Amino acid sequence: MVETHYLNIKTHGNTHILNITNDIANLVLSSKITSGIATIFVPGATGGLTTIEYEPGLLKDLPELMEKLIPSDKFYHHNDTWHDGNGHSHLRASLIGPSLTVPFTEKNLTFGTWQQIIFIDFDNRPRSRKLVVQLLGD
Amino acid sequence: MVETHYLNIKTHGNTHILNITNDIANLVLSSKITSGIATIFVPGATGGLTTIEYEPGLLKDLPELMEKLIPSDKFYHHNDTWHDGNGHSHLRASLIGPSLTVPFTEKNLTFGTWQQIIFIDFDNRPRSRKLVVQLLGD
Amino acid sequence: MVETHYLNIKTHGNTHILNITNDIANLVLSSKITSGIATIFVPGATGGLTTIEYEPGLLKDLPELMEKLIPSDKFYHHNDTWHDGNGHSHLRASLIGPSLTVPFTEKNLTFGTWQQIIFIDFDNRPRSRKLVVQLLGD
Repeated sequence: MVETHYLNIKTHGNTHILNITNDIANLVLSSKITSGIATIFVPGATGGLTTIEYEPGLLKDLPELMEKLIPSDKFYHHNDTWHDGNGHSHLRASLIGPSLTVPFTEKNLTFGTWQQIIFIDFDNRPRSRKLVVQLLGD
Repeated sequence: MVETHYLNIKTHGNTHILNITNDIANLVLSSKITSGIATIFVPGATGGLTTIEYEPGLLKDLPELMEKLIPSDKFYHHNDTWHDGNGHSHLRASLIGPSLTVPFTEKNLTFGTWQQIIFIDFDNRPRSRKLVVQLLGD
Repeated sequence: MVETHYLNIKTHGNTHILNITNDIANLVLSSKITSGIATIFVPGATGGLTTIEYEPGLLKDLPELMEKLIPSDKFYHHNDTWHDGNGHSHLRASLIGPSLTVPFTEKNLTFGTWQQIIFIDFDNRPRSRKLVVQLLGD
């Protein structure tokens, strides 16, 4: 069985980190599939998906890490192409990746207690996003 | 339903970035599966998969980022083992990851307009690669 | 068809890299599914999954790279929250990612010869881990 769902979210951009765990858990709960995998996907080249312990400290640490590894104020050739100033956003998104696959069994995502699914919007302006959540299983 | 496909590609190596979006889209179009997920996998330890806006600026920015984070001219213990000089290639591949899963629905990959699937060959020489594309769904 | 399996492992922590390739290959061999995908998932926010050539050189190079990109001795806001000193562990885990999906066909994982699946425990102490291995296919 396959079910396609969408998650509409508004972001502030600028490495805004959103906790989408409950949204995914609720989609699994209300689906007809009991056990399988949830593939979450960002249609767009300036957002990423991963997991983290969603607590105030790490919500500062992760953007600081991104700023250190891929600074927002450096020269990027991308900005020569489009002049939209978000070259760093694209590179951060490619590094973190646009896709996350999470197993579930008996309607429960197989998470750790302190682990949350996050969508990170790396773009340099507020965005409306429509994430894809594809459920596969029995 | 499960379908296994292969994608044969030749690369220049040295962080060569190839746009494989149309290849994947065509495999989905010609398959018997209407909705599901495409898992793309690199069998090999010096290649990676992610998405990017495939435009000339970012095709320079991404290799420059990799060179900054994991320089090709530094010492790596790997080169003590094999003397093949591609320690940086292995580390870049482990960081980006060998696997990408993309949902599709009604025969269409759920992409953003400016987002392409890329295979990056981090090895330090030209390579022939055979990527695996596993389609699952209904 | 869906099968849920678990892999119990003990780690030393501190970027301990474990080769779990044979465990995954054996689960596939003994399952009722012939072709499909194996999704491996870390329930926990301080571990990651990727592939690498599992040889002594890279087993030194990868921890050294992590120490360079995300040093263990720097200040992280996370440590203000919990005082457990593992802010770097969380960031490394978010960067590498908690999930890996590997296709298999005719009971064989579609690996490269020199490529192994690794679980990396980034926590700063020994841990007992229970990885999830979700098999989907025919």
